[in-house]
Amino acid sequence: PVKLWSLAVEFANKMKKLGKDDPRRIIHSLKVGVAITLVSLFYYVRQLFDRFGENGIWAVLTVVLVLEFSVGATLGKGLNRMLATLSAGALAVGVDRVATLFDRTGQPIVIGILVFIVAGTVTFMRFFPALKARYDYGLMIFILTFCLVSVSSYQDDEVLEIAYERLYTIIIGSFIAIIVCICVCPVWIGETLQNQMANNLEKLGNFLEGFGREYFRLSEEGHSTDDKSFLHGYKSVLTSKDKEETMANLARWELWHYRFGFRHPWNRYLKVGTLTRQCAYKLEDLNSYLKYFEIQTPTKFRREIQEPCIQICSESGKALKELASAIKKMRRSTSVNFHIANSKLAAENLKSKLIDNSLWENANLQEIIPTAAVGLVLIDIVPCTVKIVEAFQELASRARFERMDDRVSPSNDV
Amino acid sequence: PVKLWSLAVEFANKMKKLGKDDPRRIIHSLKVGVAITLVSLFYYVRQLFDRFGENGIWAVLTVVLVLEFSVGATLGKGLNRMLATLSAGALAVGVDRVATLFDRTGQPIVIGILVFIVAGTVTFMRFFPALKARYDYGLMIFILTFCLVSVSSYQDDEVLEIAYERLYTIIIGSFIAIIVCICVCPVWIGETLQNQMANNLEKLGNFLEGFGREYFRLSEEGHSTDDKSFLHGYKSVLTSKDKEETMANLARWELWHYRFGFRHPWNRYLKVGTLTRQCAYKLEDLNSYLKYFEIQTPTKFRREIQEPCIQICSESGKALKELASAIKKMRRSTSVNFHIANSKLAAENLKSKLIDNSLWENANLQEIIPTAAVGLVLIDIVPCTVKIVEAFQELASRARFERMDDRVSPSNDV
Repeated sequence: PVKLWSLAVEFANKMKKLGKDDPRRIIHSLKVGVAITLVSLFYYVRQLFDRFGENGIWAVLTVVLVLEFSVGATLGKGLNRMLATLSAGALAVGVDRVATLFDRTGQPIVIGILVFIVAGTVTFMRFFPALKARYDYGLMIFILTFCLVSVSSYQDDEVLEIAYERLYTIIIGSFIAIIVCICVCPVWIGETLQNQMANNLEKLGNFLEGFGREYFRLSEEGHSTDDKSFLHGYKSVLTSKDKEETMANLARWELWHYRFGFRHPWNRYLKVGTLTRQCAYKLEDLNSYLKYFEIQTPTKFRREIQEPCIQICSESGKALKELASAIKKMRRSTSVNFHIANSKLAAENLKSKLIDNSLWENANLQEIIPTAAVGLVLIDIVPCTVKIVEAFQELASRARFERMDDRVSPSNDV
Repeated sequence: PVKLWSLAVEFANKMKKLGKDDPRRIIHSLKVGVAITLVSLFYYVRQLFDRFGENGIWAVLTVVLVLEFSVGATLGKGLNRMLATLSAGALAVGVDRVATLFDRTGQPIVIGILVFIVAGTVTFMRFFPALKARYDYGLMIFILTFCLVSVSSYQDDEVLEIAYERLYTIIIGSFIAIIVCICVCPVWIGETLQNQMANNLEKLGNFLEGFGREYFRLSEEGHSTDDKSFLHGYKSVLTSKDKEETMANLARWELWHYRFGFRHPWNRYLKVGTLTRQCAYKLEDLNSYLKYFEIQTPTKFRREIQEPCIQICSESGKALKELASAIKKMRRSTSVNFHIANSKLAAENLKSKLIDNSLWENANLQEIIPTAAVGLVLIDIVPCTVKIVEAFQELASRARFERMDDRVSPSNDV
C-alpha cells in the first residue's frame, strides 16, 4: 500500500508537470469534456431524443473521435468524416437498390460481393502516399459507413433512413467538435509549425555563435565553465522531418486563419526545414571536433585563422537568428543580407589564410589538421546558410510576408 | 472526357505500380474484404441476427477499425479495444448505479458531471508519452465506451445489457480481425523492423566501400562512370528515427512469433538504430568532401594516405555489412571482430601518416586540407562502427542470437 501510494504520488506529479509544460493540454481536456456534455443533450433533452432517438449515439461518437488537439486535425477529421459518410451512404443506397432486384437468397450474395469489392479497393487506395497523408481517415470512414449501411440494409428496409440519420448526426457531431475546437482557445497547428521552424533556426544560430566562442576561447583560457546547453540544442533538429511533414499536412486543413489565410505555402516551410536539417548535419560535424581539445595547446596557426572563423560563426548565427525572428513575425528581413555578405567575406578571408604556406611551417600537424578541418566545415556552412535564406525569401514572397522597408527593391532582396 | 480518361489510366498505372512494389498490399486489401464478409454473416444468418440483432453492427465496425496491415498493429488495436471496452463498460455501469440514487431531474446532472470528469481526465492522460505510444487507441475507446454507455443509460434502463452486448460484439469483431490478420499471410512488423535495421547498416557499408574506391580512383582516372547509387542510399537512414520508434512500439504487441518469442529486446534495436544514424551523419560529411574533386589533381600526399584510408573504408564497410547479414539471420558474427581490428590498425596507421611532417613539405595546401579532413572523418568512423558492433553484441546476447561457433568464448566476443 505504501508503494502504491508513492506510485500514485509520482503519477500525480508527472501529470502536474505535463500540465505545467503546456497548459493548452489542460484546456484541451476541458474542451473535450464540454463538447461531450453538449452533445449528451441529445439524450437528456426530451425533444431532441424524440427526434433522433438511439441514433444520437453517432453524434456522441463523432465528437469523441473528431475533437483533436489542433484545429487542423479536428477540421481534417471532421471534413473527412462528413464527406466520407455522405459519399459512402449514397453508394450504399445505390447498392441496396441493385440488391432489391434479386430475391431473398440472392440479396446477401450480391451485397456480399459488392462489399468485398468496395472494401478491398478502398483499403488498397489507403496505401497511396498522397491519399494517406490527408484522406486516410476519410477512406476508413468510407469503408465503415458503406459496410454498415449495406450490411444492415438486408435486415432493415429503411436503408435510406439509416443513411440519412447517420449523416445528420455525424454532421451535427462534427460541427459541435469543430466549433468547440475553434471557439475555445484554439491551437492552430500552422502556428505551431511556424514557431517550430523558427525555433529550429534559432537553435542552429545559437550553436554557431556559441561554437565560435567555445572553440577559440577554450584553447586560450582552458575549459570554460558557463552554460553549454546551446551545444546540444540543435540535436532535436536532426530528427525533425516526420513531425514537420505531419504538421504541414494538418496545417493545410486550416483553410482560414487570421494570419495565414487561404493557400498558405506550407510546402515552402518544408523546404526551409529540409535545408535547416542539412545545416544541422554540418553542426553535428563541427561538434565532433570539440573533442580534440584535450590534446591541444594554442598555436600561432589557430590564432591566425581565429578571426575569420569566429566571424563566420557569429555572422551566420546572426543571420539564422534574424531569419527565425522574421519567420515568427512573418516579416521580410533586410539585415539578413548584411550578415550573409559579411560571412561570405569572412569565408573568402579564411580560404586565403588556409592556403597560406607560411602558416604551416614548423607547425604541430596533430593540432593543425583538426583546426583546418573546422575551417573547411565553416566555409561549407556559408553556402548552407545562403540556401536557407533563399528558401526563406521564396517563402516570404509566396506567403506575402510584410516588408520591413518598402523602398528596398525586390532585386536587392536576396 | 479525353483528359478524364488519361487521368484514369494514370491512376490505374499508379495502382499497378503500388501493388507491384509490395504485393502484400494487395493481400492486405483482400484480407480486409474477407474479414468484412465474414463478419457480415451476423446480418445474413438468421440465427445470429436473432441473437445479436442491431448490435452486430459493432462487430462490423470493430473489424474495419482493428484490422491493420501488420500483426502488431492489429493485435495492439484489438487488445486495446477489448480491454478499454471492458473497463469503461464496468465503470459506466457503476456510474449508472450511482445515478439511480437520484431522481429524474438529478440524474442527467450527476451523469453529466461524471462524464465531464472522466472524459477530461482520460483525455489528459493521452498526453503522457508512455501511454500515448502504446495505449492511445485504448484510452480513446475508453472515453468512447464510457460516454456511450453512461449517456444512453438515461434513456435506456437496460444499461447492463447494452454494456454486455457491446463487449461481446467487440470481442467477436476483434477476434475475427486478429485471426484473419495472423492466419492469412501475416505481416510481422518485428520482421520488418529487423530487416530495415539490417538494410540501413548495409547501406552504410555500401557507401563506405564505394566511397573509398570513388574518392581515390576519381583523382587518378578522372570521373568514373559506373553506378553511383550507393552514394545516396544512406540518405534515408538520416531520417529513420520516427519510423523505427513506431515500428518498435507495434512490434511489442507481437507477443509471440516463431523467431522472436516473448520479450524480444526491441529497445536494443532502437539503440543500434540511433548509433547507425550517428554514423550516417559522418557519411553525410564525407559525401560533402566529394565535391572538392573538380579542383584537384593527384598528389604525393593523397597517394601516401590512400592505402590506410581505403582500408578503413573497406574494413568498416565489411564490418557493417557483416552485421547486417548477422541481424537478418539472427546469428552472432565472429568475422566482424576481425574487420574491426583491421580498421583500428588502419586508423592508427593513418594517424601516424597524417602527422608526418615530411608529407606536408611543399605541398598544395588547397588540395591537402580537404584530403586530410577526409582522413580525420574516416578515423572518427572507426569508433562509430565499434559502438554499433557493441550495441549489436548486447542485442545478440539479450535476444539469444545463435552462435556461429560455440567454441568461441564470450570474452573474445567483443
